[in-house]
Amino acid sequence: MKTLKIVKIGGHIINDDAALNDFLDNFSQVTSPKILIHGGGKSATALAQQMNIEVKMINGRRITNAETLDIITMLYAGKINKTIVAKLQAKNTNAIGFSGADGNSIVAVKRSTETIDYGFVGDIQKVNIKHLKIVLNNNITPVFCAITHDKNGQLLNTNADTVASELAIAFANDYATELYYCFEKNGVLKDVNNDSSVIETIDSKNYPVLLKNNIIADGMLPKLTNCFHAIHHSVQKVHIGKSSMILNKNLKHTTIQK
Amino acid sequence: MKTLKIVKIGGHIINDDAALNDFLDNFSQVTSPKILIHGGGKSATALAQQMNIEVKMINGRRITNAETLDIITMLYAGKINKTIVAKLQAKNTNAIGFSGADGNSIVAVKRSTETIDYGFVGDIQKVNIKHLKIVLNNNITPVFCAITHDKNGQLLNTNADTVASELAIAFANDYATELYYCFEKNGVLKDVNNDSSVIETIDSKNYPVLLKNNIIADGMLPKLTNCFHAIHHSVQKVHIGKSSMILNKNLKHTTIQK
Repeated sequence: MKTLKIVKIGGHIINDDAALNDFLDNFSQVTSPKILIHGGGKSATALAQQMNIEVKMINGRRITNAETLDIITMLYAGKINKTIVAKLQAKNTNAIGFSGADGNSIVAVKRSTETIDYGFVGDIQKVNIKHLKIVLNNNITPVFCAITHDKNGQLLNTNADTVASELAIAFANDYATELYYCFEKNGVLKDVNNDSSVIETIDSKNYPVLLKNNIIADGMLPKLTNCFHAIHHSVQKVHIGKSSMILNKNLKHTTIQK
Repeated sequence: MKTLKIVKIGGHIINDDAALNDFLDNFSQVTSPKILIHGGGKSATALAQQMNIEVKMINGRRITNAETLDIITMLYAGKINKTIVAKLQAKNTNAIGFSGADGNSIVAVKRSTETIDYGFVGDIQKVNIKHLKIVLNNNITPVFCAITHDKNGQLLNTNADTVASELAIAFANDYATELYYCFEKNGVLKDVNNDSSVIETIDSKNYPVLLKNNIIADGMLPKLTNCFHAIHHSVQKVHIGKSSMILNKNLKHTTIQK
């Protein structure tokens, strides 16, 4: 089976022109079929402030009301996505920007409001890869923002890490899928202040121990849940670390195993 | 040859939810391959005001500085484009949103600053239809915003009427292309205040006479230039009128002929 690399980048790269450029240089040199997923970083909060729109948070999580969904759609699907696509074209990587609505590629359902009403937030129901495979077979790289739709005309805000893992899982029957979560640290750290304290392998054996001993920072837990979900659903490799790991296999980082 | 309908809609439809919904109902019923091009209407000016960004105009034309390009990219490629794509999916028309950067489909060159510096405005150099043809052959409708790129990483603001005519011309060897400019009036009018004064046919014979007698409103002239450019470059049919003309051939409108 051909390898498909699915690479997710977050705010530390997107909000830093030099870092984005370096990353896209590396990403362009990946010769296998590939898909990029980007978050939005802190840009949504900044734009909301500039527009005098209140950002509502519950338990540290953003509430996506209609105004916030507009901001997210403008930034993620508009400015960030098209900036990345144009920069990739300049590096001779032919790319097409996607939201989940494009090609009906990612259908989600609006999250239940029973406990907390998060607003226009979508939980992924189905990934349709038929047209994405045609895109990949024509040497074009899909670039996904983390916006999905409900097939009834409603756009929905969706976690970018989850978009990445669900895309990797959806392609796992057709490609040897490898999932890369790129962020500002060298991997999952034993000591969040020491970038050389990377836990090189996390698997079903040591993960409960790490959790029990409170070694893993709380902020990493949703990402690790996505990682284990992927590795238990036929994704071949799952990695967390600095973005240069996508080219440099020897760079210290965290690998998730069954 | 198969027919390809290329339909451009403007602000009067985009900025009115009910009108947009009606139009997309009609557009979804077009059975031939089709491409939609949308402008942005007055939304860019409104967003600039909300963000306290000055809108600079010279001779009634917007100057696209870096901040304005961001606004346009957020609105046109983000909010408007994805809203349309999601609504089309709900109507079972599979669509993918495009800027000219996506698939490297429309390459433009930044307009010369010799006389007036319009900023990040692009004049179209080349339309690459190879990947768009694959998209069309898979029963997917491209939805274009009027943003192009220079292949060096720079996005550029481009006139939506021109994007429509250049797309129609680029496909004219492969399809019998029909170009529809939809706006709020019944067509080109003899009397701008009388919607029944439609000039049903404009061709190379009567156009100079209409111009000489100042019968055509100044605002229509750039659109008509695009129309004649298309009809003289192998586009088979060019129409101007209300959007329902795309389904109802008997609806009075203006047809441009050689």
